[in-house]
Amino acid sequence: MEVANEQTKTVSRSFTMKGGDGPLSYARNSSLQKGVVDATKEMIIQAIANTLDIDKLCSESSKTFQIADFGCSIGPNTFYAMQNIIESVDQKCHAKHGSSASIDLEFQVFFNDHTSNDFNTLFSSLPPSLPYFAAGVPGSFYGRLFPKSSIQIGHSSSALQWLSKVPEEVVDSSSPAWNKGSIYCTGTEKEVAKAFAAQFENDMETFLNARAEELASGGLMVLVMGGIPDGISLCQTSIGKFYDFFGSCLLNLAKKGLVTEEKVKSFNLPLYFPSTKELKAIIGRNGDFSIERSDEIIEKLKHVHALPDAQIYISQIRAGMEGLIKHHFGKEIAEEFFQSYAAKHVETGFVFTANACDNTLIFMILRRK
Amino acid sequence: MEVANEQTKTVSRSFTMKGGDGPLSYARNSSLQKGVVDATKEMIIQAIANTLDIDKLCSESSKTFQIADFGCSIGPNTFYAMQNIIESVDQKCHAKHGSSASIDLEFQVFFNDHTSNDFNTLFSSLPPSLPYFAAGVPGSFYGRLFPKSSIQIGHSSSALQWLSKVPEEVVDSSSPAWNKGSIYCTGTEKEVAKAFAAQFENDMETFLNARAEELASGGLMVLVMGGIPDGISLCQTSIGKFYDFFGSCLLNLAKKGLVTEEKVKSFNLPLYFPSTKELKAIIGRNGDFSIERSDEIIEKLKHVHALPDAQIYISQIRAGMEGLIKHHFGKEIAEEFFQSYAAKHVETGFVFTANACDNTLIFMILRRK
Repeated sequence: MEVANEQTKTVSRSFTMKGGDGPLSYARNSSLQKGVVDATKEMIIQAIANTLDIDKLCSESSKTFQIADFGCSIGPNTFYAMQNIIESVDQKCHAKHGSSASIDLEFQVFFNDHTSNDFNTLFSSLPPSLPYFAAGVPGSFYGRLFPKSSIQIGHSSSALQWLSKVPEEVVDSSSPAWNKGSIYCTGTEKEVAKAFAAQFENDMETFLNARAEELASGGLMVLVMGGIPDGISLCQTSIGKFYDFFGSCLLNLAKKGLVTEEKVKSFNLPLYFPSTKELKAIIGRNGDFSIERSDEIIEKLKHVHALPDAQIYISQIRAGMEGLIKHHFGKEIAEEFFQSYAAKHVETGFVFTANACDNTLIFMILRRK
Repeated sequence: MEVANEQTKTVSRSFTMKGGDGPLSYARNSSLQKGVVDATKEMIIQAIANTLDIDKLCSESSKTFQIADFGCSIGPNTFYAMQNIIESVDQKCHAKHGSSASIDLEFQVFFNDHTSNDFNTLFSSLPPSLPYFAAGVPGSFYGRLFPKSSIQIGHSSSALQWLSKVPEEVVDSSSPAWNKGSIYCTGTEKEVAKAFAAQFENDMETFLNARAEELASGGLMVLVMGGIPDGISLCQTSIGKFYDFFGSCLLNLAKKGLVTEEKVKSFNLPLYFPSTKELKAIIGRNGDFSIERSDEIIEKLKHVHALPDAQIYISQIRAGMEGLIKHHFGKEIAEEFFQSYAAKHVETGFVFTANACDNTLIFMILRRK
């Protein structure tokens, strides 16, 4: 057995949310994602109550219940999500076997993210009294991370829309899939969309194959990720409109002469928002999982986007995007960029939900066959 | 089930080796400890060959072999030690079942240290191709860290001589156990020695009780730690003579008027070096483990102390001690101290192996009954 470390395996560098706990960190700027956690909380409780086969997963000999969060970032959202899953499993145990049943059950939670994730901050912000044993697992979830059949419940929230890399052809000016006009997959350029969709399918397959090995038979995989309604292009949605705005701010760097226009054009976001239909087709082709539940959340995502004020919102965007911008443009340019981005954001009073289609939040519970 | 986080549980703060990979970091200044790893390598290989009951530990249903390093620091020594254990288990499998036997076996290694340990550096310096799945586990090993019976082999090297805290009475000027003349347990003051010995016994019991829960029946615990020959006081040994020198450098701070003499006198190292006899008695009283092998390494420790040059040695001491000094005296004083310590070290040409008894390295293999 040999486990390739992520650095040797994937072509692209990995990007993680901004670490630490300073005013610009992800830890303090993840209320968008917290909305996602809240929106899916009840659905997870219900799904575990209805779907989890506790007797199959916990034998007399093994009283350990192992949960993994794939793409956990640095908290606190991952702590809320894990706590929720554990309470749900506990409730299920009680309902089935009475109050003494879950006393013996011990939970172990694995927090996974890229090696470059700030695990020091994650560990130091773990709540003081935990109902589980905690461990951190460094490495890309587009690859194996755990022994065979060792995980009872997997969870991934707001992470799988991040691709393992930008498809090469979309930044290749000689390719028909060259994405010359935009920094993201708008959905309107057919060849560009095809390249991004193929990368997403490839990454999802890798993800599902790895999880199929790691999840115990009967184990559940909770998937929560950004999506778009079937038949709608990303550029028609509020998220797309935000990326258009963000891209125009990057072009301003070139207009100011701080970077070349080519440099801006060679920048693409390694992001893909699938439709539920598209994701279901990939899961179907993989064949190792049954889809136990599938929802599209629209209303609640709208609520997530009811933003408190521009400054908080700007900090949230920066926490998520800074790594990518620094890597492509350099540290000084990144600082300059986020300052001018913030100014333009306030100046134009840009609100990216105006005149746009809704995005969807895809929520699925898969069961390992 | 509730797992108390270390912050809420232990009175004392926890101290870890200096993080990062700069010139003063532990990662670059741990060749003393590397000598320990080398000295014990063959002994671990032999012990696993002779002692490990592979059939008992690996059933048909579970092909995962879990190893934990307690007090791993940030590498690279923990990587060498884990690699060595895995190769030994693999060899044992081959010897017993032929070449196909261990193909299915998957290893998972848990790197444990205090929450304040630099796990980011540990993770980013993991070798590129690993024969195991890696995870980091934050928390004091003087408490539970893993689910019941989940670990097949535990390992702890150069870590258990660190107590969970300095016994309160040794820094209490009204106590008969007040350690007024020294910064460590010299062994000559009866009441002081009793207080330190009681703290060590208490910590060791806590350690053994936790590991007894976590190790599978038949699982092995490899213990490597600094010790002293029976009947010898620490102040007679080369390590003791070093602490005398280190303490005199701290007193120089007071002579210079940078800190009060009281401040120096209230500083004690949370360290205890037991004799093998003493450690065996504690293990016997605990009763959950049989001692499969027990060695005292003397010659090889001497070799470990054959130091390359003063500068490297000074950096190694700093990597291990800086956290303690900073915590007690403050950041600026620590900087000042290590500079004057380095100067005095070079000036006096201090070699702490001169005219001293040998220290011992205690090596034990315990088996969970």
